[in-house]
Amino acid sequence: MSHLVSFKSTFDERRVLVESLLEKYLPAVAMEPRMLHEAMRYSVLAGGKRLRPILALSTYEHCGGRTSSSDLPIHRAMAALEMVHTYSLIHDDLPCMDDDDLRRGMPTCHKKFGEATAVLAGDALHVVAFQLMAQTGMVQVVEELAEAVGTFGMIGGQVADVEAEGKNISEREIVYIHKRKTGALIRCSVRIGALLAVSSGQSFARLSQYGEKIGLAFQIIDDILDVEGDPTLLGKNAGSDSRKQKATYPGVVGMEQARADANRLIDEAIALVDDGSGNMLSWVARFIGQRES
Amino acid sequence: MSHLVSFKSTFDERRVLVESLLEKYLPAVAMEPRMLHEAMRYSVLAGGKRLRPILALSTYEHCGGRTSSSDLPIHRAMAALEMVHTYSLIHDDLPCMDDDDLRRGMPTCHKKFGEATAVLAGDALHVVAFQLMAQTGMVQVVEELAEAVGTFGMIGGQVADVEAEGKNISEREIVYIHKRKTGALIRCSVRIGALLAVSSGQSFARLSQYGEKIGLAFQIIDDILDVEGDPTLLGKNAGSDSRKQKATYPGVVGMEQARADANRLIDEAIALVDDGSGNMLSWVARFIGQRES
Repeated sequence: MSHLVSFKSTFDERRVLVESLLEKYLPAVAMEPRMLHEAMRYSVLAGGKRLRPILALSTYEHCGGRTSSSDLPIHRAMAALEMVHTYSLIHDDLPCMDDDDLRRGMPTCHKKFGEATAVLAGDALHVVAFQLMAQTGMVQVVEELAEAVGTFGMIGGQVADVEAEGKNISEREIVYIHKRKTGALIRCSVRIGALLAVSSGQSFARLSQYGEKIGLAFQIIDDILDVEGDPTLLGKNAGSDSRKQKATYPGVVGMEQARADANRLIDEAIALVDDGSGNMLSWVARFIGQRES
Repeated sequence: MSHLVSFKSTFDERRVLVESLLEKYLPAVAMEPRMLHEAMRYSVLAGGKRLRPILALSTYEHCGGRTSSSDLPIHRAMAALEMVHTYSLIHDDLPCMDDDDLRRGMPTCHKKFGEATAVLAGDALHVVAFQLMAQTGMVQVVEELAEAVGTFGMIGGQVADVEAEGKNISEREIVYIHKRKTGALIRCSVRIGALLAVSSGQSFARLSQYGEKIGLAFQIIDDILDVEGDPTLLGKNAGSDSRKQKATYPGVVGMEQARADANRLIDEAIALVDDGSGNMLSWVARFIGQRES
């Protein structure tokens, strides 16, 4: 039990670290273009679990990466992962896409700053993310990010998601969507953490599988929370998937199997990284399985 | 004269090369998500001068880079530069931005495929551009691109451009806008060509200045053509800057000085790269100075 408490406090400490890294690597509002920088900071610093950077760091340490200095490649990669996640949320929320007014309990970027600024703030975060990845000095992590967010990853999942609205789709298809829309960037966070620690080939493959499993589980649970979650905890209106006739995992396989599949994926992920003595990566997987927001 | 004819035919050959590189490095329509890949290809393969990739290649050869093989880092960089240029056009044309219906004589991406697909097609081209730059294996060119297109480069210029609409601005301000909105990516094309040829420090600085000068001249001439150009050659409606109360260079300094400044910048650029015997880079600078579309 004290074990679990200590992982929880490590997780919370890392959220604080992530906030400070984002603060550090986002362009300052004092510099032009001010309103754009303000919009970027507004969306990135609006909170969130910071799951992707924490996964990257936890994998990095799991693989023996050093954390002695205060400006390491892993730090830039962590900030980049959160920025690219935020860019995707800003563009997804646009009126021509999901048309959402609320995100983390606050007006979405285009509601606050207008559509033109929201498009550009997303584009700019996208650039800063690649810039920070390049600054790790490791061209391979830039490629990892590009693969994860491109048309065979996150963007491809987003397109398939939009195309599936109002349609009857199969379990194979919903897994296809979820693995790309959300899973690819989560898996990529794990892989980049391992790459920056110069992980060996075998453990890299295992970690990559771990990342894939928790990534899919994350989005299945997102769908479950959209039906059953507490809007106060979620910071957004529940039931929005159903209103938009979104393809969801419980919609395809039923709520009971959705829960069972998520639990199974989490268990399998943990078995890949934990010998039973407990570690940060298994704690994060469990955290994803039990999250309420 | 035969000299000039030969540079012109080199330029035209390189346009053909660029088309084949774009065809090669764009994702195939046969692969999912098909409609997105179709939208990406529609906008990228709609034609254009292909100035940025040709500048990169011409600088690369100017610096002694080898072109013996058919899949070189410079080829990937060339395709990336054109893709990032196209992504910026797609997003600029959106209803919430410049709201343009026509581009290169054809319906703009959102007119043809809808806004959601246009946003995502732009995002996806942005990703492929960084992916191709990473595939050069040289992390420095990824950083060059990120700097050129970020909030202190292209996106910053776009924001300043939107903010200047309908306002009286100074010559200093219009130079600020043009250097960023258009100039930064043109300068970056030159710099990346030099970097990939492993150029020496001194010539790199000169080439970088060359890139900066032709980049600014390019956008000044764009403004002049918007007033005086032939819509048939331009492939878009002329006079759109004035209708949108855009800040333009001739609007700030007058048409006569605009022409003189563009000519001076072109002459200065040529002096930086040509000893008087003529070469491809001075031809391209002259081409920019004399273009009608």
